Amino acid sequence: MKKVGVAILGLGVVGGGTYQILTRHYEFYKKVHSVEIVVEKVLEKNRQRVLDLGIPESKIAANIDEICSDPDIDIVVEVMGGVEPAKTFTLAALGAGKSVVTSNKELYCKYSHELEKVAKSNGCGLFYEATCVGGVPVIRALLDNLQGNKISSLMGIINGTTNYILTNMSSKGATYEEVLKDAQKLGYAEADPRADVEGYDAAYKLSILSSLAFHTKIPYTAIYREGITEISEKDINYGKHLGYTLKLLAIGRNTENGVEVRVHPTFINSEHPLASVNDSYNGVYITGDSVEDVMLYGRGAGALPTGSAIVGDIIYCATHDNFRYSPFENTAEADPATKFVTNFESEYYLRFDAADMAGVLSGIAAVLSKYDISVAQVLQESGQTNKAVPLIVITHVTHENSVRKAIEEIDSMDVAKTVAVIRVVS
Amino acid sequence: MKKVGVAILGLGVVGGGTYQILTRHYEFYKKVHSVEIVVEKVLEKNRQRVLDLGIPESKIAANIDEICSDPDIDIVVEVMGGVEPAKTFTLAALGAGKSVVTSNKELYCKYSHELEKVAKSNGCGLFYEATCVGGVPVIRALLDNLQGNKISSLMGIINGTTNYILTNMSSKGATYEEVLKDAQKLGYAEADPRADVEGYDAAYKLSILSSLAFHTKIPYTAIYREGITEISEKDINYGKHLGYTLKLLAIGRNTENGVEVRVHPTFINSEHPLASVNDSYNGVYITGDSVEDVMLYGRGAGALPTGSAIVGDIIYCATHDNFRYSPFENTAEADPATKFVTNFESEYYLRFDAADMAGVLSGIAAVLSKYDISVAQVLQESGQTNKAVPLIVITHVTHENSVRKAIEEIDSMDVAKTVAVIRVVS
Repeated sequence: MKKVGVAILGLGVVGGGTYQILTRHYEFYKKVHSVEIVVEKVLEKNRQRVLDLGIPESKIAANIDEICSDPDIDIVVEVMGGVEPAKTFTLAALGAGKSVVTSNKELYCKYSHELEKVAKSNGCGLFYEATCVGGVPVIRALLDNLQGNKISSLMGIINGTTNYILTNMSSKGATYEEVLKDAQKLGYAEADPRADVEGYDAAYKLSILSSLAFHTKIPYTAIYREGITEISEKDINYGKHLGYTLKLLAIGRNTENGVEVRVHPTFINSEHPLASVNDSYNGVYITGDSVEDVMLYGRGAGALPTGSAIVGDIIYCATHDNFRYSPFENTAEADPATKFVTNFESEYYLRFDAADMAGVLSGIAAVLSKYDISVAQVLQESGQTNKAVPLIVITHVTHENSVRKAIEEIDSMDVAKTVAVIRVVS
Repeated sequence: MKKVGVAILGLGVVGGGTYQILTRHYEFYKKVHSVEIVVEKVLEKNRQRVLDLGIPESKIAANIDEICSDPDIDIVVEVMGGVEPAKTFTLAALGAGKSVVTSNKELYCKYSHELEKVAKSNGCGLFYEATCVGGVPVIRALLDNLQGNKISSLMGIINGTTNYILTNMSSKGATYEEVLKDAQKLGYAEADPRADVEGYDAAYKLSILSSLAFHTKIPYTAIYREGITEISEKDINYGKHLGYTLKLLAIGRNTENGVEVRVHPTFINSEHPLASVNDSYNGVYITGDSVEDVMLYGRGAGALPTGSAIVGDIIYCATHDNFRYSPFENTAEADPATKFVTNFESEYYLRFDAADMAGVLSGIAAVLSKYDISVAQVLQESGQTNKAVPLIVITHVTHENSVRKAIEEIDSMDVAKTVAVIRVVS
């Protein structure tokens, strides 16, 4: 029977999950895949973590060289996260002829061009299903199943932490700060939550997914990014009332005018399949010219769901002989021919604090009209005299720049102040 | 540039869609996959269909031999449907060293063991993503992404025709016959709708999907099958009132007691992600021990969505050198070691026409209790005196055989008659 040796770099949440799956299903994989998958070595500074997982001390490698020079190791699983030392270790493994399976979205997003080059020149596999959306099979769907399509749009809830926070703000009417604290207690958010709540994690994933979908390199630096830290539970409730659900959406569109890539809080029609992707679940909604609409849904993170993606890649790598490389991932930069649309089209939800006096609504309406922004819905709450009242406007499709100019002009008037600008997918 | 010649057997809906996609995207595939995909020949008796698609007459093959002996043809696309002559033609193509891409669920379900054997001995690829759920990437998800999992359950809405009919019965309050007629007019149902409405199509697909999920051959003959022809719009409405949505569900479960495979109308909790899979959309909900829950959703049929799956397979086949074969598909029969559970566990929706007199409910309750069937909900409408009134019971989890015995006994009493038995997933 074919024997495949694995080394795991990093025994955090995902590394631990991967080890557990491989150990638990050792006999199962022998039976159904005729392959014996053995974890030969692990690289992890925290000795206790290793021992807690029941891994014998003899399997702890002193350093990456010990792994690279071990002829029994065929596949290196890189689940350390971050750029360094993950990058150095991954390049060393590929350079030594080991195939690599990674869950490291930041590394693959920023350095896929370097990694793919070294993998190819050494004839090794480089697998990264686990970088995006945990156990949900989105990378392989884009690489294989949907290759016949020109994909026009990709919309995803691809960060579990922010989806957990927004879902709970919505269901409990709680503030961002309250829910974040709970999420941290429950392990759904990191002590330093910035990578998630400011949208970096989603931007790395969108970079990877949209590059595959649009067949051209989309660097994460080209992605417009806005997090959820400024979101008020008030807006979530107003939106709900108007038929919308708030999500941190990663959006990629390939239009006649160019490529549009953005991560920002979005009100999505509550009837849309993505609107019911709740808590730490993720979903990716893809539109292609042949397949029409496809949605892939599941756990976007966690030890075992992400471990599922890792182990799927390990088994594929162990049972296939020739590998494929990204043909369009030659540089860190976008192809100079790729045009990025920043003045994109969208509908908007705008909330103003307006003085409760005659003429304010018509003043705001006049400014919107001046910038060709047409109004679809207005919601004005009656307030107490002389106090600012909330005025909510949902626009028809308009342009980002028009909205920016309009709110600047509205804010310069003394009678209203813009307190929320949220893009809408209806 | 690598050139790959394709022959298409059958230019019906899916064959036509495949031809259109390949023609429209010829330059696109050259650019992004560095492969020139050329339709060299078609096999289709209906000359007009060929000409209507703009295919030159010179490409019409006289017979399968002309295709098998053509050295320019690498991949044969079989989209004829039905067992013969599709089977003879497919075996001939594989025997001649051509890879085959098929959408023929009946053929693959019934004869995968023969096809896989010939493909393997000739070193050809055999691809069948298009047999199940159109453009939704479920086969490859099971074959690759989820291979690290022990899959415990697979539930799917995998027939578009019946989902269209049930969705419209529900939204319009119309009868089965009315909606079927509409569906036939709109092309969502065949003139002879039996393969769809009696659940054969779903059973073929469930056979393929559950064999992959459970790593053992599940012949379609092992699948309990019940269609939607007896469904009344009344039950759909009562169910809706109780929080359930009616779907023709294909269910595969791998339990300690054995494998359970069934296709039948099912009330599913309206909050379940599958409940909002409407019209001709399909969805497959898979539960694995690592990945937890995954749902794949999209168009389950149609020229272009199914063509998308076919072309995805063509491109994979054209850009890969070595292929894989189903290790567990050696015979048409189940492994003798596989135990099938027919006395499965479920909740049930039972509707009785009950005489409107004292003691009927307690009589029914007594019989249910005798068979250890515990009642979760009762809905009794007040009726006019001396007329039968509907009495609806939702049970807790019980056994199929207990329910069968109980309703037989209830029907033998003179005061109540069972008019609907629908399994429930809550």
